[in-house]
Amino acid sequence: MSGDTLIVINPNASQAVTDGIKLALDPLRGFGTPIRCLTLSEGPPGIEDQRQADLTIAPMLRLAAAQKDAAGYVIACFGDPGLHALRDQTPLPVVGIQEAAVMTALTLGQRFGVIAILPASIPRHLRAFGAMGVLDRLAGDRALGLSVADLADPDKSLDAMISTGKRLRDEDGANVLIMGCAGMAQYRQTLEAETGLPVVEPCQAAAALALGQIALTLSHKGTNDAG
Amino acid sequence: MSGDTLIVINPNASQAVTDGIKLALDPLRGFGTPIRCLTLSEGPPGIEDQRQADLTIAPMLRLAAAQKDAAGYVIACFGDPGLHALRDQTPLPVVGIQEAAVMTALTLGQRFGVIAILPASIPRHLRAFGAMGVLDRLAGDRALGLSVADLADPDKSLDAMISTGKRLRDEDGANVLIMGCAGMAQYRQTLEAETGLPVVEPCQAAAALALGQIALTLSHKGTNDAG
Amino acid sequence: MSGDTLIVINPNASQAVTDGIKLALDPLRGFGTPIRCLTLSEGPPGIEDQRQADLTIAPMLRLAAAQKDAAGYVIACFGDPGLHALRDQTPLPVVGIQEAAVMTALTLGQRFGVIAILPASIPRHLRAFGAMGVLDRLAGDRALGLSVADLADPDKSLDAMISTGKRLRDEDGANVLIMGCAGMAQYRQTLEAETGLPVVEPCQAAAALALGQIALTLSHKGTNDAG
Amino acid sequence: MSGDTLIVINPNASQAVTDGIKLALDPLRGFGTPIRCLTLSEGPPGIEDQRQADLTIAPMLRLAAAQKDAAGYVIACFGDPGLHALRDQTPLPVVGIQEAAVMTALTLGQRFGVIAILPASIPRHLRAFGAMGVLDRLAGDRALGLSVADLADPDKSLDAMISTGKRLRDEDGANVLIMGCAGMAQYRQTLEAETGLPVVEPCQAAAALALGQIALTLSHKGTNDAG
Amino acid sequence: MSGDTLIVINPNASQAVTDGIKLALDPLRGFGTPIRCLTLSEGPPGIEDQRQADLTIAPMLRLAAAQKDAAGYVIACFGDPGLHALRDQTPLPVVGIQEAAVMTALTLGQRFGVIAILPASIPRHLRAFGAMGVLDRLAGDRALGLSVADLADPDKSLDAMISTGKRLRDEDGANVLIMGCAGMAQYRQTLEAETGLPVVEPCQAAAALALGQIALTLSHKGTNDAG
Amino acid sequence: MSGDTLIVINPNASQAVTDGIKLALDPLRGFGTPIRCLTLSEGPPGIEDQRQADLTIAPMLRLAAAQKDAAGYVIACFGDPGLHALRDQTPLPVVGIQEAAVMTALTLGQRFGVIAILPASIPRHLRAFGAMGVLDRLAGDRALGLSVADLADPDKSLDAMISTGKRLRDEDGANVLIMGCAGMAQYRQTLEAETGLPVVEPCQAAAALALGQIALTLSHKGTNDAG
Repeated sequence: MSGDTLIVINPNASQAVTDGIKLALDPLRGFGTPIRCLTLSEGPPGIEDQRQADLTIAPMLRLAAAQKDAAGYVIACFGDPGLHALRDQTPLPVVGIQEAAVMTALTLGQRFGVIAILPASIPRHLRAFGAMGVLDRLAGDRALGLSVADLADPDKSLDAMISTGKRLRDEDGANVLIMGCAGMAQYRQTLEAETGLPVVEPCQAAAALALGQIALTLSHKGTNDAG
Repeated sequence: MSGDTLIVINPNASQAVTDGIKLALDPLRGFGTPIRCLTLSEGPPGIEDQRQADLTIAPMLRLAAAQKDAAGYVIACFGDPGLHALRDQTPLPVVGIQEAAVMTALTLGQRFGVIAILPASIPRHLRAFGAMGVLDRLAGDRALGLSVADLADPDKSLDAMISTGKRLRDEDGANVLIMGCAGMAQYRQTLEAETGLPVVEPCQAAAALALGQIALTLSHKGTNDAG
Repeated sequence: MSGDTLIVINPNASQAVTDGIKLALDPLRGFGTPIRCLTLSEGPPGIEDQRQADLTIAPMLRLAAAQKDAAGYVIACFGDPGLHALRDQTPLPVVGIQEAAVMTALTLGQRFGVIAILPASIPRHLRAFGAMGVLDRLAGDRALGLSVADLADPDKSLDAMISTGKRLRDEDGANVLIMGCAGMAQYRQTLEAETGLPVVEPCQAAAALALGQIALTLSHKGTNDAG
Repeated sequence: MSGDTLIVINPNASQAVTDGIKLALDPLRGFGTPIRCLTLSEGPPGIEDQRQADLTIAPMLRLAAAQKDAAGYVIACFGDPGLHALRDQTPLPVVGIQEAAVMTALTLGQRFGVIAILPASIPRHLRAFGAMGVLDRLAGDRALGLSVADLADPDKSLDAMISTGKRLRDEDGANVLIMGCAGMAQYRQTLEAETGLPVVEPCQAAAALALGQIALTLSHKGTNDAG
Repeated sequence: MSGDTLIVINPNASQAVTDGIKLALDPLRGFGTPIRCLTLSEGPPGIEDQRQADLTIAPMLRLAAAQKDAAGYVIACFGDPGLHALRDQTPLPVVGIQEAAVMTALTLGQRFGVIAILPASIPRHLRAFGAMGVLDRLAGDRALGLSVADLADPDKSLDAMISTGKRLRDEDGANVLIMGCAGMAQYRQTLEAETGLPVVEPCQAAAALALGQIALTLSHKGTNDAG
Repeated sequence: MSGDTLIVINPNASQAVTDGIKLALDPLRGFGTPIRCLTLSEGPPGIEDQRQADLTIAPMLRLAAAQKDAAGYVIACFGDPGLHALRDQTPLPVVGIQEAAVMTALTLGQRFGVIAILPASIPRHLRAFGAMGVLDRLAGDRALGLSVADLADPDKSLDAMISTGKRLRDEDGANVLIMGCAGMAQYRQTLEAETGLPVVEPCQAAAALALGQIALTLSHKGTNDAG
């Protein structure tokens, strides 16, 4: 039996990231469905590799199961850890932010560019895009090239995002950009203005998609592994 | 300057089809954005080939331009005639029902099956799926196999949709179905029940996507031909 | 009932472009089939975006229908506007210059590079190459990078074509080049000499293909939308 | 220095096949370039596997080199043995019938079906279509299913071609057919009539393409291995 | 610091499956590297969906880390759960049986067919093949169509494998078969004899590959997420 | 009837290359199967284009047939000349070094980069990767950019390989490198150290794969052209 609330799970343990996601979803509050953003306390401070991502799945599945008022779920880590596992667990709509960002971007430009935080994420992204079957639409996937210390500096992060976005546009031919990480929505408007390209913030894209699926009672229907 | 209303244009001249679309969008009325469905009076009674589709573009562009309160557009013909032309004409969100149906389906199952009305539409669909770069995800595209006379009979149409959906599921391996036509939303629930698969009604998928883009001020940005 | 003449329609209103096409086809005059080049007076001076391209379709279809001695058609705009619509209208051979240029290039080198006039054309090209299913063979698609004023200067145009061709060869790995526009045949020989690569002029490629199809009575057979 | 004649080499030793090719090219005699069809006496009676095909390359290259009046070449075995080797040997146009048939078919229908003589040829075809990058356009590749004895019977061959063509059309969704063998041109007209689809005879397609390239002085330019 | 033993981990809790794997690897005992097969006691009796697969990763990573004499690892579940996570954890060679089976099959036939145990596994396989980028080589993926009860009956299982293998060969055009499950090696010889096709047993393929990588000191080099 | 020895054929006439191959296979001597490396005396000093490659096939097939103790074969030229021809000739395992290198690389990194000796080889490689269906995994294929004289200088060759490997890593995003030539194994260790990436030496990869197939009695089964 489904509830009435969209549950957004940040699988890392950073409350600041969850707060950023919450803020990013403000424009979607008028859609008539409550949205609740949760932090996975068992998660790592940040998810940097596939090992960390995979280890969030077990506690994420438990957290999801405990939300009795859920009408649907968003898994808010670019990499979509546990996306298909949660679909095995529930017939409710389950949306991953990476998948949703890509599908949204494909309606906004012919080739999408991805701004990755760390270079090591790129092979992970490529595996996912291959599984999605959308590599023909990928312009490029580039990392910010910042040290961990510099990533903590908002000015340096924004500057790096802008220059990375411009390289994706100018060298790789991207017509639309995807922010390859949750919790960076505050940079979206500036990034659009500086690059002149549409910018997809993945949590926004995923929540919008999930709200549509909830309203339309559209889901994977609980068929095992249908995704 | 953008308005506040989502404009849904049915490019054929059938008011009955437009009425069906209108009804299909009822679940999305609570999203806070008015939706207005228009019939293209200059269109043909139904769109059966690429020639008819292409000839709707000029009057459709004029009709779209005349909607001064538009916040975004949906072109409600599977085939998306004039999708990129309208994006050249306006910086507002423009969503085609074919493109939106595919992107939505890709989040609901690994391989999508398409129920086409007429066999002659299939090459047109395949060109579009190739342009979208999603052919690796296509399970199959099958026509109903009805005569024009039988298509007017709702019982025969529903029966043919169910049997076509089952073939897409059983012979082609589809995990999700797309109705390859506007105005068939009334069959969606039965089709889901009979096949056990999620069924994407393209006008619903497109309107949900457009409402999300309007709320998030997300569009192709008016860059010429960025789509 | 078919006539005996190959009709080549330039869908923009520039007689100079039509004259250039006519000249480009001189080497094919000995094939035994008369060739007549027509200017679409209702077309724009030049076709720069999808909207302009789509709006040429209705008058182009009328112009084509009026050619009672037609044995086949070439649509001489890179972008192939109305290609499938005209195939719906007639069972005679119908060749688009973009499609013909690509198919010809694929027999001359492993990866083709495209010289686009304007950057905004590139997403349109990529959609077409995706629909053709040939993206694995694309080396790159690069625009000349000239202002509209400079495009009118033949020396600047030729210089830009050569430097763009060399970048496609050296940076993108193109083994064959396609001129992404009608009416530039006069530059072909120099471009081949400067780059050392075969260069496909699309109107020549299309007319040669159409003449072969006419001689062999080979066409899409008038099956609706078979293309 | 190039001559004035198109040289068509049948790499098997069957003069009857060469005679069939010669007849098939009659419609192209009016293009102004003489066509000479040669039998490779060192070839096997028929080419059934990759080993036989590869072993024709050395004598074929010698035969080609001996044609001092050559303006271009067609290698008339579906499988294109030695295509790139001959391009390494000469800067003149060199066209393979398999490659030419595919490129021609791609302008006549969205998905092509191939009628193979023997089942063992199909993996060889698939490797070639993969190298050409056109697998997204392949509807299917089906063998006639005849014994060698029955292949010698024209009536049985024609019947098998028609039924194979209909399966490619009805079960695989082919919009255009390719005869996967040289020397079957006499069946083309009947096959078109029976299936209602365009049928590409590969020697015709290759000769037409080669004649166009000769007239346009268009070739791979002798760049080593550019093809 | 690496040890001298290849560690093969069966991530389900069935000792019978592990015993079957052990037996299957007998032909590779002469390669000079000891092989030790382990059962993951925390695993489920069998892995049927993505949720179960993902939940094995955490205990599998711990079990792997505890093998101090490891020279390399094989993860012996078709689906390769935790493959990239384990590569993040160790610089030693890590081979998944699904990946190894596919790469081996690609050297034995042009198109591979997969015999799946359960229909629900197929979308999971397709995601993996998409991530591997090998979908153009897939002939088909078909499930045995047995109930869980019948799967326990060796005769019924073997019969179903043979008939599924024949359908993959005859209807889908497979030239090589992959057994889509660990622990079925005892059927390989009969399946090859009955279908006439090479049959890849994935644990054998993976162990052979891993032994080669160990001997050649070839691994992913511990680069984070390089896989 | 099969023998007990793996036969490795270097299809060029250089004994120095054969000696290098022999040395490269030392780490695989402990696998229990004797390995014999042969030089094709009829081959050219080096294989630089498709013509030279194709002309080695006939004598290579003869040399292979004469090895009565063969348990399997490796064709040790990147380009795999005669791979499928030899499979037509024998039911024993036949491995090409190009194919084996690619399949091995695909288990070591998400995108592979190829170091080509000469620029003219690249189109040949691309055709092969297309036939293998692995182009989605290709990061780039770059030539050393050395003159023939400089290629004879080991220091210049190693320097060029390192700088080419770094460009493939940094500009093209390669996670694993393939040496696109036989006989360069002595550079592998340094190249791995300098680039930090796994490096696949193709003869090693092929011999390891062949030894596994011999031990497992796994081959293409002599089905004509099954490969």
